[in-house]
Amino acid sequence: MTVIRFSRGVPPPEAIPAAALAELTAAIVAEHGPAMFQYPPIGRHLGDPRLRTLVGQTYGVDPDAVFVTNGSLQALDILAAHFLDGPDKLVYVEGPTYDRAARIFERYGARVVSIPVAGDGIDVDELRRRVSDRVPDLLYTIPDFQNPSGVTLSEPKRRELVRLAASYGFPVVEDIPYRELRFRGNAPPRLAEISSDANVITLGSLSKVLSPGLRVGYAITDPDTALRLAERSEGIYLSPVPLSQAVAAEALAGGLVKSNLDTAREFLRPRHDAAVGAVRALLGEALMSVPDGGYYVGVQVDPGTDEDTFVEKAKQAEVALIASSAFYPRAEMGAYERLFLRLPFQSLSPAEFRTGIERLAAIVR
Amino acid sequence: MTVIRFSRGVPPPEAIPAAALAELTAAIVAEHGPAMFQYPPIGRHLGDPRLRTLVGQTYGVDPDAVFVTNGSLQALDILAAHFLDGPDKLVYVEGPTYDRAARIFERYGARVVSIPVAGDGIDVDELRRRVSDRVPDLLYTIPDFQNPSGVTLSEPKRRELVRLAASYGFPVVEDIPYRELRFRGNAPPRLAEISSDANVITLGSLSKVLSPGLRVGYAITDPDTALRLAERSEGIYLSPVPLSQAVAAEALAGGLVKSNLDTAREFLRPRHDAAVGAVRALLGEALMSVPDGGYYVGVQVDPGTDEDTFVEKAKQAEVALIASSAFYPRAEMGAYERLFLRLPFQSLSPAEFRTGIERLAAIVR
Repeated sequence: MTVIRFSRGVPPPEAIPAAALAELTAAIVAEHGPAMFQYPPIGRHLGDPRLRTLVGQTYGVDPDAVFVTNGSLQALDILAAHFLDGPDKLVYVEGPTYDRAARIFERYGARVVSIPVAGDGIDVDELRRRVSDRVPDLLYTIPDFQNPSGVTLSEPKRRELVRLAASYGFPVVEDIPYRELRFRGNAPPRLAEISSDANVITLGSLSKVLSPGLRVGYAITDPDTALRLAERSEGIYLSPVPLSQAVAAEALAGGLVKSNLDTAREFLRPRHDAAVGAVRALLGEALMSVPDGGYYVGVQVDPGTDEDTFVEKAKQAEVALIASSAFYPRAEMGAYERLFLRLPFQSLSPAEFRTGIERLAAIVR
Repeated sequence: MTVIRFSRGVPPPEAIPAAALAELTAAIVAEHGPAMFQYPPIGRHLGDPRLRTLVGQTYGVDPDAVFVTNGSLQALDILAAHFLDGPDKLVYVEGPTYDRAARIFERYGARVVSIPVAGDGIDVDELRRRVSDRVPDLLYTIPDFQNPSGVTLSEPKRRELVRLAASYGFPVVEDIPYRELRFRGNAPPRLAEISSDANVITLGSLSKVLSPGLRVGYAITDPDTALRLAERSEGIYLSPVPLSQAVAAEALAGGLVKSNLDTAREFLRPRHDAAVGAVRALLGEALMSVPDGGYYVGVQVDPGTDEDTFVEKAKQAEVALIASSAFYPRAEMGAYERLFLRLPFQSLSPAEFRTGIERLAAIVR
């Protein structure tokens, strides 16, 4: 019996155009070697100008509003340092949320509080109550094919969230690494597109649309904040790797990102459909939503026991799992009515995924 | 009249083997593309195993004691987070010291205190008095061709510094990006080589011996601390760029680092000699030491006025300078008897350097 791993959100090799990237990399170093291997300009440097121009065009924003980092996690770390400097800071996140994000906010000393996620995204009624009780210093959300639940925030809820952010004056970080991996249907607007009255920072990444090994991510904000983030980053790591940024720019300009997205969507769609089918058939109402994109299906189950015991039972049934606790603020760990499970489908064949769900079905109530 | 820039410590293009690096990069992505463009293994991951093995061989240490980062500044930031977590921390640095290092320690909330540097390095008698008064949480030193003074710490002083570190039990970070750029004479031992009784962490960088654009640096510590630093780094940026690490490893293994060091030394030696000659002839006793390596000559001058006025006078004389304040802890800025000037010679021809010194000589007392 082989272990079925419902664990990390790593892209399948089929969704990384390694051969094309190798060619493109060789061409860039042959032509621009001296610049690639030297320090990039330092001193309020936002990143590769061509890459920022292309990202700006993609999102319809000023290139000077784009700040490039070594992966979007590093952008989030720098944003956290920016917004959470000082005592008694409060961050609202989704429950469940991206584990590494919650850990970053906690590391900066903030109190991190989760607001429940339903099949159409964060509970905006609860958010309204919370915000009227206390305005947070930051709200962090993954509105598209959320990691870990797979849920997409509905358009009405997006509008209400942005209205609250504008009216109470708190900044929102929307982290959208999976947004372009939509298999069907139309995307609701990004939060940043809904109203310029709210301070919404968009976090983007090349990891899921091109290559994680490049370690290229970016934050889109206003030009003034972008400069302040750049100054902060220079004091930590001087600059991101020039070659990675140039490769990302060329892949955007030359159409490689676009063609790879088509390939990745075609590859992932049947896995998604099979995953949703297996969960519906075997775990029924545990399914939180039909994602129609991304890497994850989220379920909420009655484990009939405590979390650790359940994960251990799953392990004995040859299923590797990451359960609730990883995806909640530390202060809330263990206090769930139902157990949340993240079920990544991107790296499992339909048969493997179904086998994993069969094994899980045998141990949940 | 052209401006003479005594400013940043950027390698001259002649000291970066861009063509060879381009070839090597193309070969690596052709052969190992899938691994280069995917996430590296994450979870207590210290960096590319081959690179760590080669660095370990270079220094005669266990590869598991080597932790690789996106440039050595990032390693220093993570070390600072590790050692300076908590209130009321104290760091001793050299006065003058590397500006970005001092800013990192200050950012983590530590009190940063400088100990004067003479022609043979940090004043160990003053260090002994300070340490007996209060044991620091960290001592930071650049013992070889120091940035910014060009001074090398003498072997007797190294032994005394390490003895103090061992006897009072404080950790020492030795930052050695310039160590291999020795133009003549023999290197004194690294601090970490002197005694295993002291906790000495060595910070290394590929920026001055191969390429700054790769953004590859490393910390050498004990395997246990290396793992803790790796765990910390994963929460900030997941991992360094795999391709940069693979290129660095191949350049070490295939002899490119060694041949480039020969090239760089041959290129820099006459610039160094001319710089020392010009300073001796025109500024006399202002010279702190004959570096015999690295990028910098350091001088201490009587400006006859305050620092800002002097820098402005230099600017009017077409000399761009970075003076004392940048190189001292914030709390000490402005309180110097003589003004310190960093004079980088690596990017100036002998004639340019001499012209700059002539202009300076006309405005100092």
